Amino acid sequence: MNDHPNLTGPGLAGTECLVLGAGGFIGLNLCRALSVAGASVRGYGRASAFPGALPPLRWISAEFSDRSMLTDALEGVDTVFHLLGASIPAHAERDPADDLRTNVAASVELLRLCRTAGVRRIVYISSGGTVYGVPRSLPISETHPTDPISAYGIHKLLMEKHLGLQAYRYGMRVMVLRASNPYGPFQIPDRGQGLIATLIQRRLSRRPVEIWGDGRIVRDFLHIDDLVDAMLRAAIYEGSHGVLNVGSGIGRSVLDVVASVDKVLDTKGAEILYRPGRAVDVPANVLDVALTQRELGWVPRTEWMLGLRGTAEWIASTCHPALLTLRSAGPLT
Amino acid sequence: MNDHPNLTGPGLAGTECLVLGAGGFIGLNLCRALSVAGASVRGYGRASAFPGALPPLRWISAEFSDRSMLTDALEGVDTVFHLLGASIPAHAERDPADDLRTNVAASVELLRLCRTAGVRRIVYISSGGTVYGVPRSLPISETHPTDPISAYGIHKLLMEKHLGLQAYRYGMRVMVLRASNPYGPFQIPDRGQGLIATLIQRRLSRRPVEIWGDGRIVRDFLHIDDLVDAMLRAAIYEGSHGVLNVGSGIGRSVLDVVASVDKVLDTKGAEILYRPGRAVDVPANVLDVALTQRELGWVPRTEWMLGLRGTAEWIASTCHPALLTLRSAGPLT
Repeated sequence: MNDHPNLTGPGLAGTECLVLGAGGFIGLNLCRALSVAGASVRGYGRASAFPGALPPLRWISAEFSDRSMLTDALEGVDTVFHLLGASIPAHAERDPADDLRTNVAASVELLRLCRTAGVRRIVYISSGGTVYGVPRSLPISETHPTDPISAYGIHKLLMEKHLGLQAYRYGMRVMVLRASNPYGPFQIPDRGQGLIATLIQRRLSRRPVEIWGDGRIVRDFLHIDDLVDAMLRAAIYEGSHGVLNVGSGIGRSVLDVVASVDKVLDTKGAEILYRPGRAVDVPANVLDVALTQRELGWVPRTEWMLGLRGTAEWIASTCHPALLTLRSAGPLT
Repeated sequence: MNDHPNLTGPGLAGTECLVLGAGGFIGLNLCRALSVAGASVRGYGRASAFPGALPPLRWISAEFSDRSMLTDALEGVDTVFHLLGASIPAHAERDPADDLRTNVAASVELLRLCRTAGVRRIVYISSGGTVYGVPRSLPISETHPTDPISAYGIHKLLMEKHLGLQAYRYGMRVMVLRASNPYGPFQIPDRGQGLIATLIQRRLSRRPVEIWGDGRIVRDFLHIDDLVDAMLRAAIYEGSHGVLNVGSGIGRSVLDVVASVDKVLDTKGAEILYRPGRAVDVPANVLDVALTQRELGWVPRTEWMLGLRGTAEWIASTCHPALLTLRSAGPLT
């Protein structure tokens, strides 16, 4: 990984890393990868749904708003991975003022705590799917205007700007990764986020699939292993860019995804329920990842159908033990 | 004024206008101009320092955070001029999280109240001097990246995005005017904002002038009459642009301004105290106003030395009655 000129030699071995939001989908996968890379890992957040999948780490079970626990957790930390607290999409939409008062203010306050603690670097997961708003062209590069059409996207953008301020004013090393839609093992279906996990779960349990709009909106889906790979590289990146897109660079419509899932599960023709389109959904989002490839020496490696199959196997084994037969299915065509 | 194709015929006559922050420098000048234009004016805010200068209007003396007073004030209003509440520069710098919890959250909440009240249009004064950050080229057009180096600038940008959301999502007519540094009558000296008023006041009272940095930072100064003219045009604009720069388009260093003031007052050679430069100050800011000129049929009309002289006369007569002789000084060269 660290043979790229922008990445430091020794990598993450021995580095003290704090993962904020370690109990979630991205956090859990990240903790595992950090552990493999030899980092010393602290996890902060609510309890993980899969504690058995966590690597050896120091776990701090606390709310993000708990300033004294955060201060404690930050002591001696070199690199912070910030995966939580900016906003929850539905809450931000319903009451943006309250989202500012609670989630966003806590996230901004965190930056001051990081400074006080002497944190050297922050890797922040922003939202490549919402900060740009309606795209003027595809794929979307990092210089595209940022006019979100959701309060969630606006608040992510606000955090990006406050992080940029830390870099400019205090010399903190800040990496904003504008991630597309991650999918893969440990993403819990039916939580209102994670189209692929939810589709697979619905198909496996023979429940109808729900789609907002006509299914033609296009999104960029990225396997979690590729996102985590980019995050580890961002943590040792020494180049000049502070904001990078992290996506597959490939656009797929929701109906395409349904078709792919049906192919993996051999469930074609199953029922789809069409719901009204949502005002927060941009018509299309595909990220241009050329800059990221060049700067981080990174490429998304997970082949689409293999990624889906692995995800389906994880959901089947974790959420549907009765369907474990899927594991022994033949190779994909 | 309304002979431009983008401006509606009848203008503001009879329009119900609410000015939030009517007691301040911009607000007072705006209320006077709206009254002359025949609008029905309501002023909201803390008490004006110059109540005698206010035109006939309905005055609502209340804090911005008073939701019930705001709701009352908004009833039947067509156009809101929003001049307050986003942030106070020094407070935003000292405690950005608290600024979000109080000022910014109240400002975002206002948008919901406007929607509920059926407000048709909001004209918002943003900060052309801070939202762009360090300029990559001069003059700065509206498409320049927005990377503020101050929390104040970030929070102004956040408000712009939330306003854009109202336009996109609910069809509200939103005009964001990114104003440069306004100066002119009714700007109170020595309040930490308003370089020109403060310089004039210091010179008139024979106190030393303080400058942060070496005096070479460049700013765009705009006479308040020209800013108000742009605001009135923005209130009847029917074109497609939602964000416009409003500045003189001319860059002047702080030392240039000191020299001009000294020329107007005939106080050349007076003392300057150099203070350390401030981290929040970008090195230069000059706005490109070509788009605004085209869209609003607007040009900044106030000649620099005449604008300074009028400002000096107002300060002399209001704050220094003993120096009223300035009024009878000869024509400027």
